[in-house]
Amino acid sequence: MMKIMMSESNQTWYETLLTRTQLTNEKVNQAVKDILDNVKKDKDAAVKRYTYAFDGALLPSLRVTEEEINEAYLNVDAQLIRNLKYAKSNIEDYHQKQSSQDFVIERKGVRLGQRTRAIETVGIYVPGGTAAYPSTVLMNAIPAKMAGVKRIIMVTPPSRDGKINPNILVAAHLVGIDAIYKVGGAQAIGALAYGTEEIPKVNKIVGPGNIYVAVAKKMVMGDVGIDMIAGPSEVLIIADETANSREVASDLMAQAEHDVLAASILITTSSDLAQRVQDDINTLSMKLRRRDIIQKAMDQYGAIVIVKSLDEAIAIANQIAPEHLEIMTKNPEEVFDKIEHAGSVFLGRFTPEPVGDYVAGPNHTLPTSGTATFASPLSVYDFVKRTSYISYTKEALYEASSYVIGLADAEGLDAHACAIKVRFDEDKR
Amino acid sequence: MMKIMMSESNQTWYETLLTRTQLTNEKVNQAVKDILDNVKKDKDAAVKRYTYAFDGALLPSLRVTEEEINEAYLNVDAQLIRNLKYAKSNIEDYHQKQSSQDFVIERKGVRLGQRTRAIETVGIYVPGGTAAYPSTVLMNAIPAKMAGVKRIIMVTPPSRDGKINPNILVAAHLVGIDAIYKVGGAQAIGALAYGTEEIPKVNKIVGPGNIYVAVAKKMVMGDVGIDMIAGPSEVLIIADETANSREVASDLMAQAEHDVLAASILITTSSDLAQRVQDDINTLSMKLRRRDIIQKAMDQYGAIVIVKSLDEAIAIANQIAPEHLEIMTKNPEEVFDKIEHAGSVFLGRFTPEPVGDYVAGPNHTLPTSGTATFASPLSVYDFVKRTSYISYTKEALYEASSYVIGLADAEGLDAHACAIKVRFDEDKR
Repeated sequence: MMKIMMSESNQTWYETLLTRTQLTNEKVNQAVKDILDNVKKDKDAAVKRYTYAFDGALLPSLRVTEEEINEAYLNVDAQLIRNLKYAKSNIEDYHQKQSSQDFVIERKGVRLGQRTRAIETVGIYVPGGTAAYPSTVLMNAIPAKMAGVKRIIMVTPPSRDGKINPNILVAAHLVGIDAIYKVGGAQAIGALAYGTEEIPKVNKIVGPGNIYVAVAKKMVMGDVGIDMIAGPSEVLIIADETANSREVASDLMAQAEHDVLAASILITTSSDLAQRVQDDINTLSMKLRRRDIIQKAMDQYGAIVIVKSLDEAIAIANQIAPEHLEIMTKNPEEVFDKIEHAGSVFLGRFTPEPVGDYVAGPNHTLPTSGTATFASPLSVYDFVKRTSYISYTKEALYEASSYVIGLADAEGLDAHACAIKVRFDEDKR
Repeated sequence: MMKIMMSESNQTWYETLLTRTQLTNEKVNQAVKDILDNVKKDKDAAVKRYTYAFDGALLPSLRVTEEEINEAYLNVDAQLIRNLKYAKSNIEDYHQKQSSQDFVIERKGVRLGQRTRAIETVGIYVPGGTAAYPSTVLMNAIPAKMAGVKRIIMVTPPSRDGKINPNILVAAHLVGIDAIYKVGGAQAIGALAYGTEEIPKVNKIVGPGNIYVAVAKKMVMGDVGIDMIAGPSEVLIIADETANSREVASDLMAQAEHDVLAASILITTSSDLAQRVQDDINTLSMKLRRRDIIQKAMDQYGAIVIVKSLDEAIAIANQIAPEHLEIMTKNPEEVFDKIEHAGSVFLGRFTPEPVGDYVAGPNHTLPTSGTATFASPLSVYDFVKRTSYISYTKEALYEASSYVIGLADAEGLDAHACAIKVRFDEDKR
C-alpha cells in the first residue's frame, strides 16, 4: 500500500530513496574484482567458465551466428518488427538533432578549434532473463550509430540452453549491431574492457545491468569509458486537482513493475486525489501480472505526499532530481520551467511515461537516484570525443611569448619558458 | 638519456606507457576509503585532523578570508595579473563557442526536445606545493563560469603555516570563485562529495590531483559527478626532416619537467633529427631547474622512435592516443587529418605545447594515458546537464498507442500497457 503523508510531517523521507543504490557491498566488490582479474588473465576460458557457472550454459563459441539471427526472425511476432521500426524512426529523428559542434576561431596569426570524431568501438550491455528488453537495444545502439561509431558490439547473457531472447536479436539486427556475444554479468564487462580471443576490446561500454554489472563498470572506468552507473528506476509525479486518479495510479504502477527497488512518488496539492490514487492502485494492480513486484516496490519506496502548493511540490522534485518526472497539472509548462533537475519530463495528461520508454524519441537511458543534478540522458554526445587544435604563426607566437614565459616562470616551469625562447634564439644571433 | 629505437624493433614499447597510471594499489585504496568514511562521519573534525596530519597545518577555520585574498594581491608580481587576464580572455573566447544545444521537435500533436541547464554547485580541486598552478584555476573555473554554474567552490591544500600560494588565490579571485577552502587530498574530495559543517556538498568535482585524489574521485563517482581520472601528462611529437631539433628537444623537456611519470615521445622519419634531438636534450637540459625530474622521466618513459613513413608515425600516434600531440612536419594539416585520437593537437613549428597550456584558449585539462580514444578535453559541456521533455495530445497518444502497447507486451510489462489503455477507457464507456 502506498503511504500517504503530509509534506511537513517527515522532511527526510526521500533520503532512503536517494541512497538506495550505493554500491558499498564489500562481498560484491570482491567477487567482481576476482571475475575481472580472471577474465583479464584467462580471457575466453574464464568467460566460458563463468557463463557455465552463472548462466548454466556450456558454450563452444560465444558469438551469435547469422543462422541464429535468421531463426530469431522466425520466432518473433510480426507486429514486433513493425513496432520496433516505428520506435527506431522516432528515436533517430530525435538523436539526429544532437549534432556535434565543430568550430574554428581565427585571430591574427592564430587558428584554433574543436574537432569531433566518433568513438571507434563501443560495447553495449543488454540484460538477459526477464529484463531482456528490445527497447534497451534501440536506445543504446541508435545514438551510437548516429554518432558514426564504426563497430558496435553487443553482449547479453544466454539462457541455460545457450540461446538469446529472439526479440533482442531481432532488435540488434534492425539497428545494425556488428557482433553479438553470449556473455553477461561482470565477465561480460571484463571481456569488453580487456578483450579476449573472441571478443574485441572496446573503447567505451554502455547499457544497464544488475549490481555486478554496475560495480564492474565502475571498476573498469578509466581503462575504458563508461556511460553512467545506472541505479533502479524512479518516477515522480506532480499532480493537482485536475489530474485523473486512474491515470496517475497507472503511471505509478508502470514504474513500480520494473523492480522491487523502483520508486514511485506522487506529490500532489489535492488530498482528495491522494486518496483516490491510493484506492485505484489497489483496484488496478489486482489484474496486473507483476502485482507482487509492484506491491513490494510501493511498500518500500512508494509515497504519496500532500503539499500546500505547487511551488512546494517543485521544491521537493528539485530535491529528489528524479529520473522521470510527470507533470499533470493545469499548466504543465509553467511547472516545468521551474524544474532544475530531472532526467526526462512528461508534460500533461496524455504523456504517460511508457510513451517515452518506447516510441517518442528521446533516450530512455536516464540519470537515476538524484544524479540528474549533474548527469544527462544518454545521447549522441556520449559516442563522440573532441580534439582541440592550435596553430600559431611565428609573429603570433612572438606576440604571446611574454605572457607564456611569465606564466611559466610563475609556475616554476622553466622548460616551458625555454620552449618559447628557443624559437627566437636564432633571431638574436 | 632518451632511447632511440627503430619502430619495428619493439612493437610493444608503448604498452608500459599506457598502463603507467592504473590505480590498483590496494594500500592507497584502503587509505582513501578510510579517509572518505571518516570525513563522511566526522566532517570538519576529520578534515582538520587529516590536514594537520598530512599538511602539518593546524587550522581553526578552513575558509580563506577576504583579508587573505587582499594580502595575496600584495604578494604577487604585478605582471602576473596582466598575464592571467590575457589568458582568461582567450580561454573565455574559446569556451564561449561551446554553447549548449537546446532544440525542439514538433510533429502532429507531439512536442519534444532537449533543455540544458548549468550544474548548480561545482567543486574544483587545485593541487598545492610545487604543483600549485594558477593556470589550473583558470582552466577549470572558466568553463564552469561560462556554463552558468551558480556556485564554484575551490579546495587546495595549505602549506605548514596554513597559507595558500598567493598566485592561486589571485587567479581564483580573478575568475570569480565563490569560496576557497584550505584542504587537499582525499579528505578534500570527501568534503566536497558529502559536505561538512563549513564546506558545502557539491554536485560535481573537477580538477587534477595526485593518486589519492584520483582514487577518491573514482570512489565518490556516482554520489557526485567527476570530470575524469587524470593520469600523468604526456606529449607525442611527430616530426620529419624539416623540424628544428632544438625546438623538438625543448618541447619534449617541457613535458618531462612536470613529473617523473610524464612521457615524452618523438616519432620521426629522420634518423638525423633523432640523433640531434638526443644531443640537444643533453645540452639544453643542463641549465634547467628541473633537470633531475626531466632526466628521470625521459629514462623511464621517454622514447625517440624512427619510422619509415609519416603514415607509420600516424599509426603509432593513433595507437597511443596521446594527451598532447605536436605535429612538426612540412604539412601538419595533412597529418592532423589522419589523427583519430588525441586530446589537443599543436600544428607546426610555432605552436609549442606551452602556448596551449597557458594562453591559446583551448582547455589544458585533457584525457591522458590513451583515454583520448573515448574522452575529451574539459569543456563547458562538463558543467551542464540536459533534460529531455515530451508532450503528447490525446490524438497523438492514440495514434502511438498500438506501438507502445505492443512493445510493452513484448517486454512483459503490462502495467506499461495499462498506462496507455487507461487513458482511453472512458471513451469506451
